[in-house]
Amino acid sequence: MSEIGRSRPVLEARSKVDGTADYVINHFRHRMLHAAIVRSTQPHAVLAGIDSESARAIQGVHSVLTGQDVAQVIKDPYYGPAFHDQPILALDKVRYVGEPVAVVLAEERHVALAAAALVDVSYRDLPAVFDAVAACVEDAPQVHESLRPGAAFADLRHLAGVSGTNVALHTRLRHGDQDAAWVGDGQVFEHEYQTQQVAHAPLESHCAIAEFVRPDRLEVESGTQSPSFVRLELARLLGWRENQVRVMVPYLGGGFGAKLYMKLEALAVAAALIACRPVRVAITMDEQFFTISRHASTTRIRTRVDEAGRFRARAVDVYWNGGAYADIGPRVTQKSGYIAAGPYRIEAVSIDSRAVYTNRTPAGAMRGFGVPQMVFAHESHADEIASALGIDPIELRRRNLLADGDVHATGTRLESAATTEILELLSTKMRWAEEIDRGSGTVRRGRGVAIGLKAVVTPTTSAALVSLAGDGSVTVRQGTVDMGQGSATVMAVIAGQALGVPPEDISVLPPDTDATPYDMGTLGSRSTFHMGNAVLAAALDLKRQLAALASEMTGDSSGDISCSAGRVGGLTFEEIMTARHGAQAGTIVGYGSYTPRSVAPDPEMGQSPAITPFWMVGGAGAEISVDVQTGRIAVDRIVCVADAGVALNPDAARRQVSGGVVMQLGMTLSEEMQYEDGQLSNPGLALYKVPTALDVPREIEVCLIQHPHPDGPYGAKGIGETGTFAVSPAVANALADATGVRIRSLPLTAEKVLQGLHRRDGRRLE
Amino acid sequence: MSEIGRSRPVLEARSKVDGTADYVINHFRHRMLHAAIVRSTQPHAVLAGIDSESARAIQGVHSVLTGQDVAQVIKDPYYGPAFHDQPILALDKVRYVGEPVAVVLAEERHVALAAAALVDVSYRDLPAVFDAVAACVEDAPQVHESLRPGAAFADLRHLAGVSGTNVALHTRLRHGDQDAAWVGDGQVFEHEYQTQQVAHAPLESHCAIAEFVRPDRLEVESGTQSPSFVRLELARLLGWRENQVRVMVPYLGGGFGAKLYMKLEALAVAAALIACRPVRVAITMDEQFFTISRHASTTRIRTRVDEAGRFRARAVDVYWNGGAYADIGPRVTQKSGYIAAGPYRIEAVSIDSRAVYTNRTPAGAMRGFGVPQMVFAHESHADEIASALGIDPIELRRRNLLADGDVHATGTRLESAATTEILELLSTKMRWAEEIDRGSGTVRRGRGVAIGLKAVVTPTTSAALVSLAGDGSVTVRQGTVDMGQGSATVMAVIAGQALGVPPEDISVLPPDTDATPYDMGTLGSRSTFHMGNAVLAAALDLKRQLAALASEMTGDSSGDISCSAGRVGGLTFEEIMTARHGAQAGTIVGYGSYTPRSVAPDPEMGQSPAITPFWMVGGAGAEISVDVQTGRIAVDRIVCVADAGVALNPDAARRQVSGGVVMQLGMTLSEEMQYEDGQLSNPGLALYKVPTALDVPREIEVCLIQHPHPDGPYGAKGIGETGTFAVSPAVANALADATGVRIRSLPLTAEKVLQGLHRRDGRRLE
Repeated sequence: MSEIGRSRPVLEARSKVDGTADYVINHFRHRMLHAAIVRSTQPHAVLAGIDSESARAIQGVHSVLTGQDVAQVIKDPYYGPAFHDQPILALDKVRYVGEPVAVVLAEERHVALAAAALVDVSYRDLPAVFDAVAACVEDAPQVHESLRPGAAFADLRHLAGVSGTNVALHTRLRHGDQDAAWVGDGQVFEHEYQTQQVAHAPLESHCAIAEFVRPDRLEVESGTQSPSFVRLELARLLGWRENQVRVMVPYLGGGFGAKLYMKLEALAVAAALIACRPVRVAITMDEQFFTISRHASTTRIRTRVDEAGRFRARAVDVYWNGGAYADIGPRVTQKSGYIAAGPYRIEAVSIDSRAVYTNRTPAGAMRGFGVPQMVFAHESHADEIASALGIDPIELRRRNLLADGDVHATGTRLESAATTEILELLSTKMRWAEEIDRGSGTVRRGRGVAIGLKAVVTPTTSAALVSLAGDGSVTVRQGTVDMGQGSATVMAVIAGQALGVPPEDISVLPPDTDATPYDMGTLGSRSTFHMGNAVLAAALDLKRQLAALASEMTGDSSGDISCSAGRVGGLTFEEIMTARHGAQAGTIVGYGSYTPRSVAPDPEMGQSPAITPFWMVGGAGAEISVDVQTGRIAVDRIVCVADAGVALNPDAARRQVSGGVVMQLGMTLSEEMQYEDGQLSNPGLALYKVPTALDVPREIEVCLIQHPHPDGPYGAKGIGETGTFAVSPAVANALADATGVRIRSLPLTAEKVLQGLHRRDGRRLE
Repeated sequence: MSEIGRSRPVLEARSKVDGTADYVINHFRHRMLHAAIVRSTQPHAVLAGIDSESARAIQGVHSVLTGQDVAQVIKDPYYGPAFHDQPILALDKVRYVGEPVAVVLAEERHVALAAAALVDVSYRDLPAVFDAVAACVEDAPQVHESLRPGAAFADLRHLAGVSGTNVALHTRLRHGDQDAAWVGDGQVFEHEYQTQQVAHAPLESHCAIAEFVRPDRLEVESGTQSPSFVRLELARLLGWRENQVRVMVPYLGGGFGAKLYMKLEALAVAAALIACRPVRVAITMDEQFFTISRHASTTRIRTRVDEAGRFRARAVDVYWNGGAYADIGPRVTQKSGYIAAGPYRIEAVSIDSRAVYTNRTPAGAMRGFGVPQMVFAHESHADEIASALGIDPIELRRRNLLADGDVHATGTRLESAATTEILELLSTKMRWAEEIDRGSGTVRRGRGVAIGLKAVVTPTTSAALVSLAGDGSVTVRQGTVDMGQGSATVMAVIAGQALGVPPEDISVLPPDTDATPYDMGTLGSRSTFHMGNAVLAAALDLKRQLAALASEMTGDSSGDISCSAGRVGGLTFEEIMTARHGAQAGTIVGYGSYTPRSVAPDPEMGQSPAITPFWMVGGAGAEISVDVQTGRIAVDRIVCVADAGVALNPDAARRQVSGGVVMQLGMTLSEEMQYEDGQLSNPGLALYKVPTALDVPREIEVCLIQHPHPDGPYGAKGIGETGTFAVSPAVANALADATGVRIRSLPLTAEKVLQGLHRRDGRRLE
């Protein structure tokens, strides 16, 4: 009986209900010190002095550490996955409000917090810049004195001609004849779209514990999505080898990209190194807003559409507001830059995508990795074109959509990408051919659709071990972090299917870099595909070894040993183990490693980059009601269509997509980190409104298209982020459909809708 | 440059000096309860009642648990590696003084201890038996109501005709024509030898911490020599699969067999299960004496020696005093029974070896696993024969010694066993041909030699993983427990040699059954050979994978890829990893598992068992001074010769042997667990005297014979226990040489020497 495609509860469901699920915040180490971070009150300033005397006088305070203290023990105390630009604690100057300036270590957390409030930091203010476009102006204040790219971004030639250091990366893509394609029949459309800076706000805030268990051996427990990266980066900071650093990760209470790469770990490690004691650094929900965010973006998009309604040329100019430190922003800029022109067949494409430093909370990876911002732009733009040309929005997309097998502007061919089917299924599920109820009274109803695609980060590697104990029980060791998406269950399904063992009987242990092979990270919807393949390879390696033993024992050398229901060649696993080892003993270990085959650029496309082993496609349709008296938008129905390859645990897959939908509705309708003179005015969930159960649309329909991906484990591919792609423009397009009001900046607040209605009606809002 | 055979400091040397070495006693878990054990005051009694009211009234006491409480949560709460006879806490009755009767759990250790003293246990005494020979008498008190053998000992047919249940195992070996060999020329000699019960006394006492991290997942941290067995046995007690149980082991502060199999773990687990909190059970040095010990033995040995001084027939009758619970005693009885007739070529051999229950502290494995007891008997006996026949002791041995290639009485052929060379080297190093200074005044000097051999426990399995990180650093995961013998260093040497990496750069991580493959246990000098082979196989598996990648990258498909100095085929490991994974990324894992080829019994020997993949041989010579006024023996010089195959870390190997010598000198001269009516009168190091630095002989010369063993990793084989084999009879023989006094029971105390001198001189000791 196949374990694939049967919906089942996630393995950890019970432990999450009974409270025994394991989170870092519940971990304690003997003699552990608690940290509280003193944060900058200024957006851009020289650090003039730090007076910690009163703080240190409090009973229970161990010490107060500054950037200078850190620099004493870590030679070059700057970290970051793309650029090594972020000091563990501020040195010389601060670059955003909330930047860690000092840390108080104390025996108890509440003592550390009380003392942190007494640390007196003096600043000499510098001019600051908060907007990405403004930061690119010649005489803008410079956030950094120099650029500090890591190895992958060391070549800065692409920045030739860019003035100053506010632009960390400028990705340029040119495809087709830029001059010729702009000339001809039809019209040219140009619009500018903006998205706002938003917060990840996982309900579990960040926490990291560090302990030097020996002078040459470090252990870190952290709620991180990327234990292998944290190990590598800590080894780099310490000048150590990777085999001296151990990073352990229990369950995560949500991540969404906020817990990728280094966050609190370096600070915990530096403090532990100085204090010679274990140190725990945990932050509050409010502090998350000063840690990491999603990039605000400004996108100018210009398209020539011919008389047949076909996109002939497109130019996209994107400014990503990366905040004060690069984090993974340059990679967001690059990868999302690639898809900024949308999933369309266009003769000539020009894309300019800039990672820009400003004096705000740093921005990094967040569910969709820049794609929701780009899809908001190109799909709002598509509807504006459709509306201007009087073409049905779905029909316009149908005429232009890249089909499976077509070559994308980057030169990468679409393979196993169900673009067309998604659009058509969306049309069907939205009952697009039928008219909808247009509302009555003060309520106007409308509908909209949108579609986007995303490349998977590549080349990246995952490796796994699947081992068999003397009693025949199976353990999977793999580094994908379960943060609610159900990855452990999916890995159990894959290993279970390969071995003929019920997934529920398999132990999938949490990541621990001492025991778990490398994984690039739990990000980019890559885990089911990449780690799934590694787990499958490891399980098959184990099975191969078992089959060889069974063949030896049974004398069946036909090479046709079957493996099902926990038996190989008719023998139970336990029987094989006992026969092989003379007792209930031994461990047989299967090992698997997966790096996708490299994707060669299409020869016709010349030098364009080959960017992904598979494409994720996501479409969404929205039906909304707008109260024209209040401007309030109510989303009545969302249809979301994703291409899952084969859904290994379908209900969980649908839940993951619908979770993405709800999160994206927050960004679409209400969420925005609000700044006044660089001061964030709404940190924390009391002021910053994420959707609650009451905000969820009455109907969210998630449809999974299932064409087995030839390279996926049992045909599966990633879908985790697809729910976020198209929601915002679908709602914005529905708003225009309902009211004729086009809003080009997120969020679509009641205020903006009212302003739009008044503008439409030639009135001024009082 | 070869890493093999170069002496180097053990890898953990620094951490043991600077105090950062990791021991279980330093581990803490959040909300952990501390246990104190209430122990039986009676050697054999019905448990009439346990009144814990006063104990429970103490502030900070969580609960007081009894055997009945344990039986509520663990259906069949009896454990043991050979027999499942030992209750986690006493049920119905107690069988020795010091048996755990109840356990107090409290927030602090000192509170638990104070409360434990208030638990009032009432007993109804039963007749008890303390001597193994007496316990075999028909109407002896029965320690157990019935036998509870585990799977390996389930066949009790060999006990047919044995009355009662005090004999747990009776091993019979018959080789050759029992009638014919006893008839003929020469003489028959018969003697009885006794060894005493002694304590292991590792300086780190036992400690175990248990926590149910989820209702279906158990973690145990324990100072155990056999993590894989503890996992298996805990799973059996709980009715769980092995993949639900995790056992972690840091460094051990000595083991010597005391920390083999289950000790405190089951109690910690039962208490954690009942209390729903982590529980730590730690004992004091005094309590070690009520936990496990070395078997006292009584050996009757009878030999026919022909006129040419050749042993023609030998019958050995052994009674092993196993105390109240079997522990691994039946295996000691069996394995050491096999070699009870000594390393000699004898036509007819008859051996009877009995594991006997008595009302004493249980006895189990201890450095040498019964061999020192047997060698004391057959080597004292050899010298008594030599003396009676007027043959030089070495010459007598020379005439009778099994040579390499000969078949042992068990039917197993001696292969790669340097018996002859050891005897000859011993003769040379002892300058046997020269006369020694015989002393002056009240001091008499003498010398003696002895030789013994030991089979390795088989078939047993070890498995290991050797993995490579993205930066080329190497990590070894293997389950041999480092308890001072330097095993981690040896594994690093083996992996380092295979990969061309300095051993000091390799991380050898401590055992953790979630991450480390199975190992049968750190015992029986098996680790270098068995685990060494597993680590070697894993390293070679890794190397094979690297060579395949290097071949792909360099285009060299000659199959002749070299691996040296951290390079494969001219590429560094890091270069291979980066090329393979497109970044500093990935893990390549090599896996190896080793079970020795089965040793077939020699066809000429018929049905005798095949018992070992290799033989360990150890010889010792002693020069001593005896003060005939006080009876005090001073050991002036010890020569110890062992067959190491190839010593991987020679200085450490020699230190291990000399450590064994000193420990065995304690048993030879001073150590004895003294009982009066079943009450142990000298528990703890204040009363029980182990050798200190001042007791170490001025000269201990350890000579390692190095003939590569064909199956050993780089030719190595085990030597760990060889230092203990021959020391006691060498000293006893030297005493006889010096004074003419033959003492047939250990220890050789001044009192016994004086008694012997007086007896010799026809005087009575006042």
